[in-house]
Amino acid sequence: MTATTPAPTAATERNGVDVDKLIATVNAVKENPALATFQFRARSTWEGGGRSRTTIQRFYGAGQEDTSRTQPFELHGDEPPVLLGTNTAPNAVETVLAALASCLAVGVAYNAAARGITIESLEFDLQGDLDLQGFLGLSDQVRPGYANIALTYRIKADAPRDQLVELCHYVQRTSPVLDIIRNPVPVSVELAD
Amino acid sequence: MTATTPAPTAATERNGVDVDKLIATVNAVKENPALATFQFRARSTWEGGGRSRTTIQRFYGAGQEDTSRTQPFELHGDEPPVLLGTNTAPNAVETVLAALASCLAVGVAYNAAARGITIESLEFDLQGDLDLQGFLGLSDQVRPGYANIALTYRIKADAPRDQLVELCHYVQRTSPVLDIIRNPVPVSVELAD
Repeated sequence: MTATTPAPTAATERNGVDVDKLIATVNAVKENPALATFQFRARSTWEGGGRSRTTIQRFYGAGQEDTSRTQPFELHGDEPPVLLGTNTAPNAVETVLAALASCLAVGVAYNAAARGITIESLEFDLQGDLDLQGFLGLSDQVRPGYANIALTYRIKADAPRDQLVELCHYVQRTSPVLDIIRNPVPVSVELAD
Repeated sequence: MTATTPAPTAATERNGVDVDKLIATVNAVKENPALATFQFRARSTWEGGGRSRTTIQRFYGAGQEDTSRTQPFELHGDEPPVLLGTNTAPNAVETVLAALASCLAVGVAYNAAARGITIESLEFDLQGDLDLQGFLGLSDQVRPGYANIALTYRIKADAPRDQLVELCHYVQRTSPVLDIIRNPVPVSVELAD
């Protein structure tokens, strides 16, 4: 054990992930693919101006309604003054960058654990370019969302670079949020009476 | 003034939005489209297991580096126990739902203000269906991200339903996050040395 390889806190733990439980989860889903059906949910309330508050608690997954969260999580949104807000929270497109980083972090940590790679540190820098003419309705030629996103990983781990490159490629192929951003997701919208 | 039409706190304010400043912003971008160029940024650090912390502060927009935020915002990510996490924060795909709601709230509030519609209340319910076989790498036929997202608006406002329907359609056409989810965004990825 050196300073760069933290002692596991359980016999089967690597990167803070219970590797036996991870393998058991994968095998359970292999045997019963219905366990892979998840539904995630959120409820959001506008709070004036650019401000909103979203609560997240229950979801369905692994064959049942999840009740593990005793309190809802709260996420806040706002805009900076230059976009007519009051800077009480990040804006929506910034929150998309946070979701992408969070997703890739989980993917790297879990898949590294499954491969026996110990991650010492993992950071992401993200930037997204956006032309506001789309949101402002000033041009049909300009999309409202990001024109592109650039992402840089910085990983320190006990594996050679080619293994880390392969790990990152695998994580990118299987990342839910990267897929949501890179590929079309159908969104149905209803205005309640 | 009635209970359902809050008094504006400034002569030009509606829905908590400075309507004069909104119109001035739109006109400034019309005259100088370079002002519409924005770059948003985030930096994220993995904290073990499924946990990560993202900080968001500076961005470029309206022709300059924005320095209005004296402190960074922090967003946290984690997974529930059924997904091998510790439930300290919402997961990444739940955060995507929050970003979508936040974006549509801004769009409704701002565009209603520009049209002279006063919003009394605005809520969103969101749900996203996801098949975990994609993330787990168990099937090439299953996408990792949401198969679909369903969104319901509940709006109380001083306008007839047909105007609210038209407002929502306009907001959906110009929503940055809805565009990011519904349509492909190129994402470039680099693994730093």
